[in-house]
Amino acid sequence: MGYSDVDQLAINTIRVLAIDATSKANSGHPGAPMGLAPAAHVLFNKFMNFNPKNPKWANRDRFVLSNGHGCMLQYALLHLYGYAVSLDDLKAFRQIGSITPGHPESHDTPGIEVTTGPLGQGIANAVGLAIAQAHSGAVFNKPGYDLLNNYTYCIFGDGCAQEGVASEACSTAGHLKLGNLICLYDDNHISIDGDTKVSFTEDVMKRFEAYGWHTLEVKDGDHDLQGIEDAIRQAQQVKDKPTVIKVTTTIGFGSKLQGTGGVHGNPLKADDAEGVKKAFGFDPAQSFVVPQQVYDLYNKKAAEGAAKEQEWNNLLQKYASEYSAEHADLTRRLSGKLPEGWEKSLPTYKPTDPAIASRKLSEAVLEKIHSVIPELLSGSADLTGSNNTRWKNAVDFQPPEYGIGEWSGRYLRYGVREHGMGAIMNGLAAYGTVIPAAGTFLNFVSYAAGAVRLSALSQVRTIWVATHDSIGLGEDGPTHQPIETLAHFRALPNIMVWRPADGNETSAAYYSALTSVHTSSILALTRQNLPQLQNSSIEAALKGGYVALDAPSPAIIIVSTGSEVSIAIDAAQYLKDKHNVAARVVSIPCFEVFDAQPKEYRLSVLPDGIPVLSFEALTTMGWERYSHEQFGLNRFGASGPYKEVYAKFEFTPEGISKRALATIDFYKGTTPRSPINRAFQQLI
Amino acid sequence: MGYSDVDQLAINTIRVLAIDATSKANSGHPGAPMGLAPAAHVLFNKFMNFNPKNPKWANRDRFVLSNGHGCMLQYALLHLYGYAVSLDDLKAFRQIGSITPGHPESHDTPGIEVTTGPLGQGIANAVGLAIAQAHSGAVFNKPGYDLLNNYTYCIFGDGCAQEGVASEACSTAGHLKLGNLICLYDDNHISIDGDTKVSFTEDVMKRFEAYGWHTLEVKDGDHDLQGIEDAIRQAQQVKDKPTVIKVTTTIGFGSKLQGTGGVHGNPLKADDAEGVKKAFGFDPAQSFVVPQQVYDLYNKKAAEGAAKEQEWNNLLQKYASEYSAEHADLTRRLSGKLPEGWEKSLPTYKPTDPAIASRKLSEAVLEKIHSVIPELLSGSADLTGSNNTRWKNAVDFQPPEYGIGEWSGRYLRYGVREHGMGAIMNGLAAYGTVIPAAGTFLNFVSYAAGAVRLSALSQVRTIWVATHDSIGLGEDGPTHQPIETLAHFRALPNIMVWRPADGNETSAAYYSALTSVHTSSILALTRQNLPQLQNSSIEAALKGGYVALDAPSPAIIIVSTGSEVSIAIDAAQYLKDKHNVAARVVSIPCFEVFDAQPKEYRLSVLPDGIPVLSFEALTTMGWERYSHEQFGLNRFGASGPYKEVYAKFEFTPEGISKRALATIDFYKGTTPRSPINRAFQQLI
Repeated sequence: MGYSDVDQLAINTIRVLAIDATSKANSGHPGAPMGLAPAAHVLFNKFMNFNPKNPKWANRDRFVLSNGHGCMLQYALLHLYGYAVSLDDLKAFRQIGSITPGHPESHDTPGIEVTTGPLGQGIANAVGLAIAQAHSGAVFNKPGYDLLNNYTYCIFGDGCAQEGVASEACSTAGHLKLGNLICLYDDNHISIDGDTKVSFTEDVMKRFEAYGWHTLEVKDGDHDLQGIEDAIRQAQQVKDKPTVIKVTTTIGFGSKLQGTGGVHGNPLKADDAEGVKKAFGFDPAQSFVVPQQVYDLYNKKAAEGAAKEQEWNNLLQKYASEYSAEHADLTRRLSGKLPEGWEKSLPTYKPTDPAIASRKLSEAVLEKIHSVIPELLSGSADLTGSNNTRWKNAVDFQPPEYGIGEWSGRYLRYGVREHGMGAIMNGLAAYGTVIPAAGTFLNFVSYAAGAVRLSALSQVRTIWVATHDSIGLGEDGPTHQPIETLAHFRALPNIMVWRPADGNETSAAYYSALTSVHTSSILALTRQNLPQLQNSSIEAALKGGYVALDAPSPAIIIVSTGSEVSIAIDAAQYLKDKHNVAARVVSIPCFEVFDAQPKEYRLSVLPDGIPVLSFEALTTMGWERYSHEQFGLNRFGASGPYKEVYAKFEFTPEGISKRALATIDFYKGTTPRSPINRAFQQLI
Repeated sequence: MGYSDVDQLAINTIRVLAIDATSKANSGHPGAPMGLAPAAHVLFNKFMNFNPKNPKWANRDRFVLSNGHGCMLQYALLHLYGYAVSLDDLKAFRQIGSITPGHPESHDTPGIEVTTGPLGQGIANAVGLAIAQAHSGAVFNKPGYDLLNNYTYCIFGDGCAQEGVASEACSTAGHLKLGNLICLYDDNHISIDGDTKVSFTEDVMKRFEAYGWHTLEVKDGDHDLQGIEDAIRQAQQVKDKPTVIKVTTTIGFGSKLQGTGGVHGNPLKADDAEGVKKAFGFDPAQSFVVPQQVYDLYNKKAAEGAAKEQEWNNLLQKYASEYSAEHADLTRRLSGKLPEGWEKSLPTYKPTDPAIASRKLSEAVLEKIHSVIPELLSGSADLTGSNNTRWKNAVDFQPPEYGIGEWSGRYLRYGVREHGMGAIMNGLAAYGTVIPAAGTFLNFVSYAAGAVRLSALSQVRTIWVATHDSIGLGEDGPTHQPIETLAHFRALPNIMVWRPADGNETSAAYYSALTSVHTSSILALTRQNLPQLQNSSIEAALKGGYVALDAPSPAIIIVSTGSEVSIAIDAAQYLKDKHNVAARVVSIPCFEVFDAQPKEYRLSVLPDGIPVLSFEALTTMGWERYSHEQFGLNRFGASGPYKEVYAKFEFTPEGISKRALATIDFYKGTTPRSPINRAFQQLI
């Protein structure tokens, strides 16, 4: 107990490193690190369990800096504790190719758990990390083997506190009674527009109490290290509620501009930086200096962490002999690999099988695979019966005292909180022992766009079960009918948008989503029934695109996805019967996967010399990549029975045929190049 | 005072109409209308001021049904009060072409103020409507002329209460002390997944208190009409806080399934419907029956409303003589027209003018036009200094007691609440007397995707000042650098995405955004400086696309936008100097506007026979529409000084030239069709 001058020196070292790094980059946010250094020092040095030499230790405490712009705080700590973040890395802050980018990115930097910066995401990720711990502990811990019992700690600021995604996730955390989640609210009263009084005067602690959180306050977060310690210790005692500790700090502590917006997002002026260094006992002429006592203090803590991991490894070894199946399951999960042979459980279909909505086909997949992939957690944003995300006999993930579920339950009730759900999924996936899948209507995945983007950027495996994927949802009308949604997410890098046309394609979508360890997926699924296609198979669909119906010497190729493929096939028949025109139909359930195939294959599907018409009941944007002409919906839909809505927009065999004939006519006498042939390669 | 059997009959008529309409459509949500009929009856018949014969009366009370799926409640009321919603319209519920779609759409149906259904949006729109009233009242009311003093009433349910967008907006409403906003929270404990206890156990009233709201409760919302009335009356007394009244109701009141999820989203079974009708004294063999006493009761109220409008019109006439300038301003605003000659205030630039970031060019526009367009309200989601949205000497919109602004202030501090901001803007625009513009980073407009979509669908004039529009923002890195964002919003119908290349194009973007009364706009603006282009002018840019640099017999056309246009022009010079290749450069600042030009013009810009290369530092998706080959960024960006980031991705004259030469080579010996020539017209 007690704090010495070395603690204060460590705190000031963090502050000065933040000043130096932002000054050298001439860019960045010194204010938050300077204000938060005391709280972070106490948290890291007195409480957190971690081994800098193995940032992936399964039972490490997780730390999330939700106000990611303050990342020099985190980079400084990682360096000081001996993670693979060097002083040179700090000097390369915000430079190209560095592991110290402007906001923390989990795939870049050892010790960064989740990618933060877009405000509100980090605290929601922290809720996901805490859920994953609570679940995984319940699954794997045994008497005498408290294998997974880590805390999730999170620091967040006023910006995060204002974001709706954080509100959604924190309401969820309160409902779930996540006692393993401890958050520090950096109450510095400053955001970019200056004093928060201009827009943010609510009683934040009272709000968290309303969510069911345990709340504490530390009035002088600049100096009262013992108070911070006491609060965190008190938080640990409360097992049935998440805790938020309001820590009142001074942004830019030590600067002439401390306590003002002037120190939020700009490096300190040279004279100010000098003054701070002098006041903290540093040589103003030098930069990036770390006193040896600070390294020593932090190395000691790091060594303790390494010893704790060793102890844990010993326990794990004992566990292996006593609970070999559980041990094998845990180590397999941590490797990211699925159980051997799981894919044999994927349903397959014959053309004679009945027409089924792809949301039901998705349910059939979940029903089959949930028992062979125990790490799969399903859920929905309050649309369980519509998304078909819940397998029979699924147990809800709930605090047992509610009597409606268990910590080991695998079905999450996210509530009507799509954005929170997306960000929680990112945290779940980041924990390492579970794979999250969750449902909403495709149109409302857009509510979660901020979180989906971070799934992609941070390379986590999350699965969106996005049902009601077009005007085919019918009567709910334009407010619920996606138009731009597929184009939006197809334009996002590192995410696979699947729109399966039948049962085999749906199974392929799940295969792809589950085996892509570093990529997120959105499965766009129908409300309406779809027939099983003649040429479809899991193998064919896994190429991302294939010939769903062929014809000798086709005069046209129709490329399509999902519910429109079978209509395109009917159109091909119509063209043949009524116009004696041969048409090939190509199904492209996933652009991203098709694009990754060898060019030769892609050209065999879409060869030179044949005009291509795309057909999808959403925006045509993006289809120019695979077609010469496009048929789709570049306006909002309509409320009505879905067959009538399709007919209204001429999404019928006749309507397609009309465009196909126009296309053939337009390209008559030319040999159109295949859309696959391009003048140069894109950078990826 | 007091309630008679006729009141109860009216309530039951609403319930039975909801049953009949959902049964006839075999689709829809009877539960909410049946539960909310008592509260809505009291609210409409005892409190609301409206004239069904003129749904656009400026001082009408506004009503928002945030849980829009319950729209049969609203459609029934509109019919019963004599709005232009007939019994036949109710019979066409959820049918194509009806004015009674599955969720209420403001551009379809007289009496619907805002388009709702996507949960959480409506209550945030209500906050916008209330802000618009508070502001407009302060601007136009004079002693003896309380011209604009309407209330905004909103009903919202458990789903809305869970959505982050609602949290953001309600925190804002509390801060702003909007005493003119009265919300009824339909506390029926049921959402689609069943009892809300599975995910939503927070203390909602305590949360609203934390936001600074006045809270009240009505324990028996099924029967206690007087209690509902008393609560609304009490709410009206509190002038310095918004009020939320928790009304506990029984979803599907009267049905066998009342109080369960079974009555939420499905029509009642035939025998259940019969039973309800019998119990309510209706003939089960008949449908869509309205007892004459109910029409009489509601007609009386409608007549009172008409008389109130007449009184108001008389007051307005008097006002016209005493305050002619204000009167002229108000009536002009209500017409949607801008002041005569306002556009003369738009700045114009010569090629010799200095290079300026387009966020600064946008600021220059606001600086010039704010005094000539008094209805323009600006604001930012806590990025005022970065978005440059605040003109000098702007006054904040704030409750005067804070001492930091006025009700008449025109600058809104939205806080770090992008989604709330978007939905509030939709409400502001719907009020009719103000035009909202507001800023955030382009990347974070995605947080507000749900609200942006509804701007477009509901055809309101909102303006997003979306700065930091590409990797050109530099050091903040991939978490903040948009890639997919422009494609996303370009794929959305009825929204104009502008990405101006210089000063004249920025002025054109504002001209277009401000004069497009039924279309929302996103202005994508740079952080980095941009030179003034040789050929640019407001007139040219208003065509959406034009030749920014021409050359005789060009071998290639480079199409580009925003910050990339000047680099493309440098590339044209490079091609000429180093390779003796002539290139034309086309700037397409707005796809939507360019698409609306006559084909002849578009073909003059992008003629047949010349290969076209697009260049934009974001995803290439969508550019296939205007080009044969595309150069862009189909991966995430990088953190670093922006010029280095551009160089990393070869977004330089050399890098473009390389692709231009490859393109010329690829199309050698062919006469590529202009991308403007298409086989058939799209449906719009």
